[in-house]
Amino acid sequence: MTGNKRLEAVRQHLTSSEDQKAHTLDPIASMNEERKGTSFDVRQLTYHLDGGERITKLKENMMLEFERDPLFKLDDIHDLNKDQLRERTMEKFRSILHHFQNESVDTFKKRIELISLIDPGFWTRFGVHYALFIGSLQSNATPSQMTYWFQKGAVSLSGMIGCFAMTELGHGSNVPGLETTATFEEGANQFIIHTPTLTATKWWIGGAAHTATHAIVFAQLIVRGKRYGTKCFVVPLRDPKTYETLPGVTIGDIGKKMGRDGIDNGWIQFSNVRIPRNHMLMKHTKVTELGKVIEPKLQQLTYGALLQGRVAMVVDSANTAKKALTIGIRYAAVRRQFAPTNSDIETKLLDYPIHQRRLMPLLAQAFAMHFTGSEMTEMYNDMMGQLDSATPDDPDMDQVIEALKETHATSAGLKAFCTWNCLHTIEQCRQACGGHGYSAYTGLAGMYNDFAVQCTWEGDNTILTLQSGRYLINSYREAIKGKKLAPGVGYLNELGTLIGKRCAVPTLQAILHPDVISEGWRVVCANVVKNAAIQFETCLANGMDVDDAFEECSQARLYAARLHTYAYLYNRFADGVQKVADERVRAVLTDVCMLYGLYTIEENDGAFLQYEYFTPQQMQFIRAQVNVLCKVVRQQAIPLVDAFNFSDYIINSALGRFDGNVYIHYFEQVKRANPPPRDHPYFERLIKPLLERRIRGQDDDDEDDEDEPESDLDDQE
Amino acid sequence: MTGNKRLEAVRQHLTSSEDQKAHTLDPIASMNEERKGTSFDVRQLTYHLDGGERITKLKENMMLEFERDPLFKLDDIHDLNKDQLRERTMEKFRSILHHFQNESVDTFKKRIELISLIDPGFWTRFGVHYALFIGSLQSNATPSQMTYWFQKGAVSLSGMIGCFAMTELGHGSNVPGLETTATFEEGANQFIIHTPTLTATKWWIGGAAHTATHAIVFAQLIVRGKRYGTKCFVVPLRDPKTYETLPGVTIGDIGKKMGRDGIDNGWIQFSNVRIPRNHMLMKHTKVTELGKVIEPKLQQLTYGALLQGRVAMVVDSANTAKKALTIGIRYAAVRRQFAPTNSDIETKLLDYPIHQRRLMPLLAQAFAMHFTGSEMTEMYNDMMGQLDSATPDDPDMDQVIEALKETHATSAGLKAFCTWNCLHTIEQCRQACGGHGYSAYTGLAGMYNDFAVQCTWEGDNTILTLQSGRYLINSYREAIKGKKLAPGVGYLNELGTLIGKRCAVPTLQAILHPDVISEGWRVVCANVVKNAAIQFETCLANGMDVDDAFEECSQARLYAARLHTYAYLYNRFADGVQKVADERVRAVLTDVCMLYGLYTIEENDGAFLQYEYFTPQQMQFIRAQVNVLCKVVRQQAIPLVDAFNFSDYIINSALGRFDGNVYIHYFEQVKRANPPPRDHPYFERLIKPLLERRIRGQDDDDEDDEDEPESDLDDQE
Repeated sequence: MTGNKRLEAVRQHLTSSEDQKAHTLDPIASMNEERKGTSFDVRQLTYHLDGGERITKLKENMMLEFERDPLFKLDDIHDLNKDQLRERTMEKFRSILHHFQNESVDTFKKRIELISLIDPGFWTRFGVHYALFIGSLQSNATPSQMTYWFQKGAVSLSGMIGCFAMTELGHGSNVPGLETTATFEEGANQFIIHTPTLTATKWWIGGAAHTATHAIVFAQLIVRGKRYGTKCFVVPLRDPKTYETLPGVTIGDIGKKMGRDGIDNGWIQFSNVRIPRNHMLMKHTKVTELGKVIEPKLQQLTYGALLQGRVAMVVDSANTAKKALTIGIRYAAVRRQFAPTNSDIETKLLDYPIHQRRLMPLLAQAFAMHFTGSEMTEMYNDMMGQLDSATPDDPDMDQVIEALKETHATSAGLKAFCTWNCLHTIEQCRQACGGHGYSAYTGLAGMYNDFAVQCTWEGDNTILTLQSGRYLINSYREAIKGKKLAPGVGYLNELGTLIGKRCAVPTLQAILHPDVISEGWRVVCANVVKNAAIQFETCLANGMDVDDAFEECSQARLYAARLHTYAYLYNRFADGVQKVADERVRAVLTDVCMLYGLYTIEENDGAFLQYEYFTPQQMQFIRAQVNVLCKVVRQQAIPLVDAFNFSDYIINSALGRFDGNVYIHYFEQVKRANPPPRDHPYFERLIKPLLERRIRGQDDDDEDDEDEPESDLDDQE
Repeated sequence: MTGNKRLEAVRQHLTSSEDQKAHTLDPIASMNEERKGTSFDVRQLTYHLDGGERITKLKENMMLEFERDPLFKLDDIHDLNKDQLRERTMEKFRSILHHFQNESVDTFKKRIELISLIDPGFWTRFGVHYALFIGSLQSNATPSQMTYWFQKGAVSLSGMIGCFAMTELGHGSNVPGLETTATFEEGANQFIIHTPTLTATKWWIGGAAHTATHAIVFAQLIVRGKRYGTKCFVVPLRDPKTYETLPGVTIGDIGKKMGRDGIDNGWIQFSNVRIPRNHMLMKHTKVTELGKVIEPKLQQLTYGALLQGRVAMVVDSANTAKKALTIGIRYAAVRRQFAPTNSDIETKLLDYPIHQRRLMPLLAQAFAMHFTGSEMTEMYNDMMGQLDSATPDDPDMDQVIEALKETHATSAGLKAFCTWNCLHTIEQCRQACGGHGYSAYTGLAGMYNDFAVQCTWEGDNTILTLQSGRYLINSYREAIKGKKLAPGVGYLNELGTLIGKRCAVPTLQAILHPDVISEGWRVVCANVVKNAAIQFETCLANGMDVDDAFEECSQARLYAARLHTYAYLYNRFADGVQKVADERVRAVLTDVCMLYGLYTIEENDGAFLQYEYFTPQQMQFIRAQVNVLCKVVRQQAIPLVDAFNFSDYIINSALGRFDGNVYIHYFEQVKRANPPPRDHPYFERLIKPLLERRIRGQDDDDEDDEDEPESDLDDQE
């Protein structure tokens, strides 16, 4: 079909009322008709999202490999209990190690991205060793210490598996407040690792319950009675030959969680466990044999490591949201409910304006998170490259550091709002599937439970938003003093023109331009950051210290971070769309991006009206345009989710099948997962005695006559 | 302690900086100090919330009974699998039937309310028989049919247990669209119940998998080839002596769900199952032996039955939110994180302004839902009483019917927004507990999963909001024509004064008055309803039919319903506070109610600014006052949740213990639930071969020397 013919077909599809009559209740036909109206080359969009045809094919190959790998079987997972899930998860190590040792880092990263969608619990369990344990060695070990642990098998998993023992029962976010101690004993040249209180018990330690032989332990360094703060130590936990815990190490199982039960979180208590001095990781602070503590001249630059985790979580939020939306939107394209008065054929959920309102803005948001994640990944790689190659007296270094700080703060907000957005998307898709969304087998319930932890770990979301807000206030105060800020907060250098600015367009229609949306966000962000900064300065003026003042204006910080982050997401999306070469792909994404822009303005209407960037009349127009754009995007909704290109195996939900044949597959899966029991469960023990118990005052002669009710019942004749 | 002394103590507690020094890390002491500052008589508030001392004591007795009843054991439930949970749940029937047969209806209702907090799965399973099966008989059976089924054992559960087979695989909300057929066969005087397609399979039927002997089946009545719509039929499913399914009945298990796994949902297919004619429930439509169909003159008034379910769900939303908040707030009163620069003692979460922002408005909302639930319960009982006693020519009847319609529509919105609010509250409390919120044992994860279904069943929330919005538009149009509306929508009779009205207060401080808040809501609601009605009329003017026009403006309907419902909640709360006799209780609730009013205005700031009831400056003041009121309410937060008066057994979360002793009890529960395994799970099968596998190119001589790392590692000396 040529482009013109296709467009003609689309137009007919959109306008012909005859087409309505061809509708049928058959879900496959319902799905097929959706694809007939596709306005763009789906494959081109997939290539663009993936970063090129090569990567699309790589991912397709991987999806097929996983689907065929019995260890990665998915359709029975909802009925496995915690112990079965953990064992299944451990089995996957064998398979993944093979790939780890045989493919390039970039290829393997793609594999890991897919694993996060297939089995988030395994993703975590594997990540505990590879990202956290080995990551800690890379950040905190001296080169020779690193060599030592790598030779011992840390990378190849020969003879050892690591875990990461940071959080304690009484302390999560506050790492400097951890209670576990590492006391240096000079004569012995050893550290004594000790859990002094119940709350010092290492808690939530992934891999500790069943898997790990070694732990990176965060503990308070104490030398000659003096405390030097929290440092990292490698502490052996178990004999790798027998898996018995070593003397002084007590390990327990954290047990059942909301989700990710494939990972064996545990708790650990140390009772005066001795480790050699060199098990302290000494890249930064060093302790000599004689008990001399050498502290680093400069606080280590940890931005890099933190950034990497956050970038990964933005990407994961985008991917998980795409998976949830594939299910919610495909189901809405075949599910029908209520017939219009003039028809026997019920209406598709997706044709209801309210259902479009539920799902289309979230689809747009998934794209925004996607483009943001991609751009952040690139930016991160660039920056790290620059940092690695730069010399301290490089003239551009200041600018790189400034950009790094800005990205660091922005990424804190992005991690928070993207994980919240994704969790919200999953739940909205689940509810949009009606009752079937409550079934374990349709996938969204488990997805919610697995994903929920992302809002807490790697920095509690609320705390991260406050960090982002703090950076915004500081940037504002620097801008006031004339400092040129990094591009991401560059709008704070234009306060003079932005504060008080109103949307000056000749017509309502003229609002629908990316430059207007973008300016609106700059104006609103400048205002809310200014407002937060004024609150902060008022607190200072009233005699509060800096920390108290920041606490006091934390709601304003959160609000500033929220708007800054939404603006950032919109701008990355708009930039990303500009870069799309294919015209028709760009056209459809332009609509989606405009929907995202207007929807987020509507969601934050209070701010846009508060600072009078838009008038109430303009805002009313925007609300109406969101409805219009939902309808426009709905026309391409199925091709758009098709472009995410997840195979039915990855989707793992009958409701999200590519072919739309939802009912038969859902029914078959429920039957497969729940074969008829051999005996009626607990009938003899519980039900029969209940039904046959004698009740005071009851006749004995009302014996069952199921098929012949009394004829005196007939009062109607 | 006298009132004055207590107030003095409170003042000291609030102002004394000395008090800070008395803080200790001990969680019990942290909790105790919270109660020292109580400004009101907690017991009085409890009596008020419960509806009197007698009911408080009744509930306390019941909580104790449940706690001592081994069938209602709670602390092991998180580790029971689906099959164990179902069996445990069935066991409880025995216990609850005893109470059902021996206590008054009102007393038993209180018991059921508690059961919903203790075991929502059992609440549903029991409710399927008592509310749905028997409820259907009451609504749809003739008196002699009712007598027949009651004599057969429907109430006493002797020889039969019922289920409610309405929803099908392909149809949920659209009851008239159900596909199951009930075809009358004249000669045989029987109906043939049949499942014609896969999508007609009865689906989600609670109790069908293991429990029920009989079903109320919703099916299309067909007589002499003509369809008469969906009616109810009693269909026997199983032989109560053997529990074998009867000929033509196929039953399967729906299996694993997001939550409430104690209820055995099943699916049912009927293959030409014959039932006697009198198994059709004929209170409304009747079919004679000769195949004459007698349809009712008037459509039955089903408002009553629907209302009862919705009132119950508002009450349940309030109660479940209270339970979640007891956990979240008590934990925040003892959990400490980060020490201020001038102190060794870390700060309580509850003392962080941002944490107050997270939980205090939700606490206020729980009170709003409580007062609304109570008032609706009363109103419902009154109305039903009036309806039962009224004669058709009663002059007040019109007014009662009008009020009933209004309450019906408002209750649709309340069911939707209260269940959404409660679900949101649970998740916010869970996230506010940080990492520990992800543990199954802290209770909030399971609470979320159990509660989530409330947003879908008994009317999908989104559809209910649209019904509410439709009623508002219709009311607006009637008001324009001069009709006097029911009190709940009375503001639509004042459009002339409300549209365009602005907040006319002399000072910002004067905003803080219930009358101002209330007026603001009336103005905003009048505007958004008007706006929705204009959109609707524009659609009609453009040639749409009524149904399409309503669909087209569904976003405006939802928005109108949202604001109307929030206003309703605020007004019920404000009215409720007025009625509190105890002065100090009223004082604290006045603060809580003002927080709720301002918080909901802030949440809907776009509407208040859009219609210019508040100026941007006033809105800024309101935002700041929410912060202030969060701090005020925080001071009484622990006494306020104490007043909910749930025992530790009901709370069933170490984090929500009354005594604040969270860590030791959490630790002990995790240990109890996860005793050390006898063997290292899957070590021999999976871990050992992995650790000991030979890797290409790896030396054999890096044998383990755990305690003696190489000395060349020492690069730092």
